[in-house]
Amino acid sequence: MDNDKLRRVALGLEPATLVLKNARIVNVYSGTIDEGDIAIEDGVIAGIGKYEGLKETDLCFRYVAPGLIDGHVHIESSMLVPSEFARIVVPRGTTTVIADPHEIANVCGLDGIKFMISSARNVPLEVHIMMPSSVPATKFETSGATISAEEIMALKNEKEILGLGEMMDYPGVIGGDLETYKKITAMSDRIIDGHAPFVSGKELMAYRLAGIATDHESTTAAELREKVSLGMYVHLREGSATRNVKDLLKGITKNNVHRLLFCTDDKHPRDIVREGHINYNVNLAINGGVDPVDAIRMATINIATCYNLRHLGAIAPGLAADLIVFDSLRKIEPILVYKKGELVAKDNIPLFAPPKLHDQKVLSSVRYDPLDLDFKLRLKSDKVYVIGLEKNNVTTKKMIESVKLKDGLYVQENNTDILKLAIVERHRDSKRVGLALVKGYGLRGGAVALSIAHDSHNVICIGDNDEDMMLAVKTIKGIGGGIVLIKNHDVFDYLRLEVAGLMTSSDHRHVEGKLNRLNQAIHQMGVSDEDDPFLSLAFLSLPVIPELKCTDFGLFDVGSFKLIPLEAREGES
Amino acid sequence: MDNDKLRRVALGLEPATLVLKNARIVNVYSGTIDEGDIAIEDGVIAGIGKYEGLKETDLCFRYVAPGLIDGHVHIESSMLVPSEFARIVVPRGTTTVIADPHEIANVCGLDGIKFMISSARNVPLEVHIMMPSSVPATKFETSGATISAEEIMALKNEKEILGLGEMMDYPGVIGGDLETYKKITAMSDRIIDGHAPFVSGKELMAYRLAGIATDHESTTAAELREKVSLGMYVHLREGSATRNVKDLLKGITKNNVHRLLFCTDDKHPRDIVREGHINYNVNLAINGGVDPVDAIRMATINIATCYNLRHLGAIAPGLAADLIVFDSLRKIEPILVYKKGELVAKDNIPLFAPPKLHDQKVLSSVRYDPLDLDFKLRLKSDKVYVIGLEKNNVTTKKMIESVKLKDGLYVQENNTDILKLAIVERHRDSKRVGLALVKGYGLRGGAVALSIAHDSHNVICIGDNDEDMMLAVKTIKGIGGGIVLIKNHDVFDYLRLEVAGLMTSSDHRHVEGKLNRLNQAIHQMGVSDEDDPFLSLAFLSLPVIPELKCTDFGLFDVGSFKLIPLEAREGES
Repeated sequence: MDNDKLRRVALGLEPATLVLKNARIVNVYSGTIDEGDIAIEDGVIAGIGKYEGLKETDLCFRYVAPGLIDGHVHIESSMLVPSEFARIVVPRGTTTVIADPHEIANVCGLDGIKFMISSARNVPLEVHIMMPSSVPATKFETSGATISAEEIMALKNEKEILGLGEMMDYPGVIGGDLETYKKITAMSDRIIDGHAPFVSGKELMAYRLAGIATDHESTTAAELREKVSLGMYVHLREGSATRNVKDLLKGITKNNVHRLLFCTDDKHPRDIVREGHINYNVNLAINGGVDPVDAIRMATINIATCYNLRHLGAIAPGLAADLIVFDSLRKIEPILVYKKGELVAKDNIPLFAPPKLHDQKVLSSVRYDPLDLDFKLRLKSDKVYVIGLEKNNVTTKKMIESVKLKDGLYVQENNTDILKLAIVERHRDSKRVGLALVKGYGLRGGAVALSIAHDSHNVICIGDNDEDMMLAVKTIKGIGGGIVLIKNHDVFDYLRLEVAGLMTSSDHRHVEGKLNRLNQAIHQMGVSDEDDPFLSLAFLSLPVIPELKCTDFGLFDVGSFKLIPLEAREGES
Repeated sequence: MDNDKLRRVALGLEPATLVLKNARIVNVYSGTIDEGDIAIEDGVIAGIGKYEGLKETDLCFRYVAPGLIDGHVHIESSMLVPSEFARIVVPRGTTTVIADPHEIANVCGLDGIKFMISSARNVPLEVHIMMPSSVPATKFETSGATISAEEIMALKNEKEILGLGEMMDYPGVIGGDLETYKKITAMSDRIIDGHAPFVSGKELMAYRLAGIATDHESTTAAELREKVSLGMYVHLREGSATRNVKDLLKGITKNNVHRLLFCTDDKHPRDIVREGHINYNVNLAINGGVDPVDAIRMATINIATCYNLRHLGAIAPGLAADLIVFDSLRKIEPILVYKKGELVAKDNIPLFAPPKLHDQKVLSSVRYDPLDLDFKLRLKSDKVYVIGLEKNNVTTKKMIESVKLKDGLYVQENNTDILKLAIVERHRDSKRVGLALVKGYGLRGGAVALSIAHDSHNVICIGDNDEDMMLAVKTIKGIGGGIVLIKNHDVFDYLRLEVAGLMTSSDHRHVEGKLNRLNQAIHQMGVSDEDDPFLSLAFLSLPVIPELKCTDFGLFDVGSFKLIPLEAREGES
């Protein structure tokens, strides 16, 4: 950056490389709308006022706001690598994200985090990384990697590493777990993100005391108010599954709005394209009666202040020229998006191609030999625990059912809605398969497998016969990870997610096309069309959500927080 | 800090060491007044709610606010060393200051800065240091030290060093001076304080562009608003000489108040004791109609946020237990002051003694031999430039007067109000004396000398005869710096400022007693009682304030920014 050139441009002694003329500038410092030209030099805002440029773009008094920031996102949930993710979020006005690569870290460890950083390097989306704090999520499952306090220390000085990712293990924080505190201590000079759903009162005191600076799990205005009152910056989240903005708007006041932020957490590409990204949070707030400048502050300067990103979040001399141009303060739909002074999107179209990045370390992450696997389910009793699925929810019910046995083995019957579930360990070639039974999925005549399985991302497979299940996990291995549907004993179709089994380098249209085709077919095979039929399976092995789950170690009872046999205990019903 | 003990106290599993029961808590995050107990453990706030303590203090629903912070102060202006300064500001509720030791740095360089840090170490006042950026202030005077970009780099990682002190050389910043930018670059990852009186428009763009984060020189609401709109945090200053809060209140809105801070800059002990310290700024704002919680925010969380002091500025778990207790939100007069959980002041009385610190490096800073000095003023013409003093102002007028000569030497006449002024270089034993003539001081029958002389702090001496002037500078040398009054050809009295010639280790009562006695006497000798008769002299050698000044190099014309001879040019009148 040529400081002297910038200085001369600011003073009007030299023309700027680019001047955006006649802008209505959203001033997030003053809370005002200012009129003027914006002089841009070397990717940086040089001045605001009357300026001349070598190139001038007349904005005809359209609004200009700072580029939007997503305060907390798992990019992996888009199933797109960061460079492709950029191509759908940048046109919606997001020029920076605070990303927690928790999912890929569970598969590939530090290599995964480095991939996320590399993949974003040559696209106009600034990705700041919060170091995942909870890898693996629990000790009752096999993950591809472990990130210890020592590893956090080792990577923390990489320039993209901003702080410590959401401290999901809030019981560990509140309960004083030593390993948890080692990680906190390792990053105590940085921002530490929180994750404290329903934590309140003295437990919240203990959580905040550990130095946790933010929370994005609030679902009620009262929760938001309590967390703000203790000095936590609170994210108002609007993702695909978790839609909290409307409820939280009630908690916003002129006195606390500068402590509030927006985030998406997890949002599917379909929803990003249909609704928008962080601009959708802003628009929901405006629609709910929040002053538009305050709503924009929650997506810009407030996040920059919280995360100490001094070069971002406002339109002022010396800050990055990340700018969005739009027509109305009632609904923010960017017409033009500038990143570091470059026009990078126009009318919802990205003006940049994703660089192709081949990183062997995040490919070939499915590491089992299908020949080693066995889905035979041996039972000592026909009265067994069954995982009861619940519509539109990632919680399950602990049910007891009678099933058919033959020679001590489970036999699939067509008149029940019970299916076999296999969690196949895919990271360490341990040959370990956890088996369970699931009720309520509805699938007939086939099998599904997917390598998205929160949080350890083993392979989840469900089906009504062992042969189709075997074909499914074999196909997953063959394509290097993804989502597979077996129908008529054949591979009907698949979405390949070759990067860590979680993301693809293909574009969002490919993902949508494949998912539409797979969805149609699976609905025809009996699965309800209310839910997302594939991604709802992805939470079946997350052993922290009630009541029954299954990991590669077997059936897990969340209530008693331990592995249990399938056979129901005497006297239980 | 025992994190586990703290955690257990927060959870209510163990009693806290101290609980402040039944508090009305000023919540600077939420902008609300909350009722509850405050549990304190190990100097830190453990929790807010219902708590039990080994010791409990019932506040009977008095208000509790975070300890106040002075956002920008030159402690030297109190003439008290930091440990004594603490004894008058802590009882007024100030528990932290952001100090710029610009004055002592001009005398003692880095040793002076280290002294300020050491002196504050064992008193309950947290002193964060902004590294002086402009030592020496100009090249037309001799200072005791130079602080280069290299020296800034060398000291920046000391834990008390927070950032770079006020960039007074705003022409250098705006004009692109290389040395200035070297210093800015050295501290570009830290907070850089500004100093930009009346700087506006494109020049302010260039100044802000350099990364200057704050300004405390605004005197009008329009100036405040312009600086805030560019992302500068703006201090509202209320010192002894500069009283800006009332005028600036008009610029405060609910939209910008979180970007505004309070400071004193320079405040004499007399005014601190009479009015208060930062609490006086707060009270002026409340009196002017600002919401009391907003006014308190400007003295607490806003400053902590600006300067990234994450452990300060609010009442929340994990933050330092710096607290003030008071009766009314209409006027904040602390009854109790806690620093890190210790009661350190009660009813305006400090409950701590100042540690005595003997640091040879900041003593003996007056380094001339009086025998070397000569005050004879040789003139080639009787028509000379004279420095015209102005009442209640540090600016002067460039006057031309006819004076009496004998054998080419200036002769003092009793029927004019012209006196001889000598600026005696005191740092390097150069024997250099700058001589000039001053009109309007009124002194008869004696001389004054002082070693406070902004910004290089040479010795300023003024008198109506050379013998008394000689006795004055001899006495200054003898006492190691201070303020001396010669009357009836004898030393009438003096205030000894043995630390760098700027401060004393004695207490504020001693300073006030001495100044009162000296003031009375000098008024009897003809000096007007409107001004501060000694400290108004201290600006006579500051070569950046119009119109005529005098340094150890001689008469300085601020308009043409150069040294000039005393003799008036032909044709000028």
